[in-house]
Amino acid sequence: MKKVFVVGVIILLGGFGFFKNIYADPHIGQQNVRDNELPSWSDGNTRQRILEFVHNAIMEGNAGFIPEQDRIAVFDNDGTLWSEQPLYFQFMFVLDRVKELAPQHPDWKTKEPFKSVIAGDLKTALASGEKGLAAMLAATSAGMTTDEYTQLVKTWIATAVHPVTKKHYNEMIFQPMLELLQLLRTNGFQTFIVSGGETDFMRAWATDAYGIPPQQIVGSTLKTKFEIVNGKPVIRRLPQLNFVDDKAGKPVGIQQYIGKKPVFAAGNSDGDYEMLQWTSSNTLPHLGIIVHHTDAQREFAYDRKSHIGQLAKGLDSAARYGWQLVDMKNDWKTIYP
Amino acid sequence: MKKVFVVGVIILLGGFGFFKNIYADPHIGQQNVRDNELPSWSDGNTRQRILEFVHNAIMEGNAGFIPEQDRIAVFDNDGTLWSEQPLYFQFMFVLDRVKELAPQHPDWKTKEPFKSVIAGDLKTALASGEKGLAAMLAATSAGMTTDEYTQLVKTWIATAVHPVTKKHYNEMIFQPMLELLQLLRTNGFQTFIVSGGETDFMRAWATDAYGIPPQQIVGSTLKTKFEIVNGKPVIRRLPQLNFVDDKAGKPVGIQQYIGKKPVFAAGNSDGDYEMLQWTSSNTLPHLGIIVHHTDAQREFAYDRKSHIGQLAKGLDSAARYGWQLVDMKNDWKTIYP
Repeated sequence: MKKVFVVGVIILLGGFGFFKNIYADPHIGQQNVRDNELPSWSDGNTRQRILEFVHNAIMEGNAGFIPEQDRIAVFDNDGTLWSEQPLYFQFMFVLDRVKELAPQHPDWKTKEPFKSVIAGDLKTALASGEKGLAAMLAATSAGMTTDEYTQLVKTWIATAVHPVTKKHYNEMIFQPMLELLQLLRTNGFQTFIVSGGETDFMRAWATDAYGIPPQQIVGSTLKTKFEIVNGKPVIRRLPQLNFVDDKAGKPVGIQQYIGKKPVFAAGNSDGDYEMLQWTSSNTLPHLGIIVHHTDAQREFAYDRKSHIGQLAKGLDSAARYGWQLVDMKNDWKTIYP
Repeated sequence: MKKVFVVGVIILLGGFGFFKNIYADPHIGQQNVRDNELPSWSDGNTRQRILEFVHNAIMEGNAGFIPEQDRIAVFDNDGTLWSEQPLYFQFMFVLDRVKELAPQHPDWKTKEPFKSVIAGDLKTALASGEKGLAAMLAATSAGMTTDEYTQLVKTWIATAVHPVTKKHYNEMIFQPMLELLQLLRTNGFQTFIVSGGETDFMRAWATDAYGIPPQQIVGSTLKTKFEIVNGKPVIRRLPQLNFVDDKAGKPVGIQQYIGKKPVFAAGNSDGDYEMLQWTSSNTLPHLGIIVHHTDAQREFAYDRKSHIGQLAKGLDSAARYGWQLVDMKNDWKTIYP
């Protein structure tokens, strides 16, 4: 009986990993470290390829080695670091602002696209196209100082909830991508956001959400103006687009802000196509990945025919450029933190 | 004799600091470290004020403490980090390019300001004002890809010499400012250039000269365009100004690129006035310094009446804002490395 008891205890302790330190050899130790990397990624080709790229990048003498100052990694935001359906979340902010400001603008009751937004008829509102969106952006997101705008976005992100998931928007960031950002930074990469979303909109919450400082957040911008108000300098947001950081604008934004070709790029839509092309033309080792939204159950499933985050060219060209498709359904164990 | 010899050796060794480690106590060690900081700066109020600001910034609990993520330091380039007389050095590059390209442009022989530049009549050429300069910039610095332009600037900076000093232009950087950049970085500050000069012009040499990576170099920009040429992606420089990073444009550039108000700013002319104002409105501890060109012997002496690097508002407002004037003649032991 005693013997059985002892053996039982030993088996139990073994099951709880009690002897791991005793039995571990350096090789197993190495294996454990790698198992701890990207824990929300299913073990498979996608995870292996990313890990290999990163491990090779830091190994001097290795063909995949990348000098530390060249380890520039760029990430799209909408659909790559957080969700983007049924509408880019910055649009949600704009729509919420239209409703909030409506009492101060009686003329909006008869003026599109404001009229339809107030009436809750999103379809008609969006039919106004880019011109309508620009009008709403100007009416809701310009005129104030950058500090005032940041405060508005911070308040919104802390209170607003997504219409489908009922989560706060900053709870709809992707856990596997947080791990990837961290893995890259641990290995000497500088992580940048390069997104079609507006820079100041992202900066209001993305530093907390992703650990990326404001100077590494590149996006679309409005024109701004330096002013002295009551003896205090401010920067005022003007109702005029300055730069659109999307499609062919992404490599332009990368050159303007970063001044160096990235070695790693992550995107999810054809808005990221030129950024991926630019990265893939690097003479240093490089990797491009495309988050493919394949999980209707846990997130949203869409690609070629979606109005938001359309992905067609990227799917067609992935093999040619060696871009790694990330199959959300199968490659990610978890979606949201 | 033997005794005298031994004593002599001991004195000699002492003189060479052989016993420093033995005699050093922590207090003396600290003193030595501080003496080694900013060695090209004369001991005096300017050096002391900068050192105090930096030492306090890293001392948690101190009233002058600044959290590391907020330690953003911005530096003008022309006249602050390197010389700028008799003409901004980027203009020298443009003038050299006009002469170099002249054989391919027979029409320039009769077309101002090109005609006067080719004839060596700089005064008439410059009388064409901003319009003339823009025309020369477009003709000499646009049309090519960013890679091609970078190569042109690299070749120029390696070969061209300054008309007065006969030094290469990148040998006319200020040794005391190199030490200040290094001091700030050693203490957790991120150092940025925020200059009226063009971003890509500076990036071609400033990383080597100052140890500032391309993503921390903010300047004026031309519009650029992403293109595929023979299957390879390139970014082409267009003959059109995109952003002028001077005067009230400097805080705008800081907000756009860095997204955070600096705690330290260094300038030398009224083109830096708004950047200094913006920095001085920081609620965190902050310091602004103005390099005052007072040394006609070793560099150039100019301020209120200069066409290049005019400094009048800055001199008039320094006391009110607490900006520290740096008297090149008396505060700097060395000018160039």
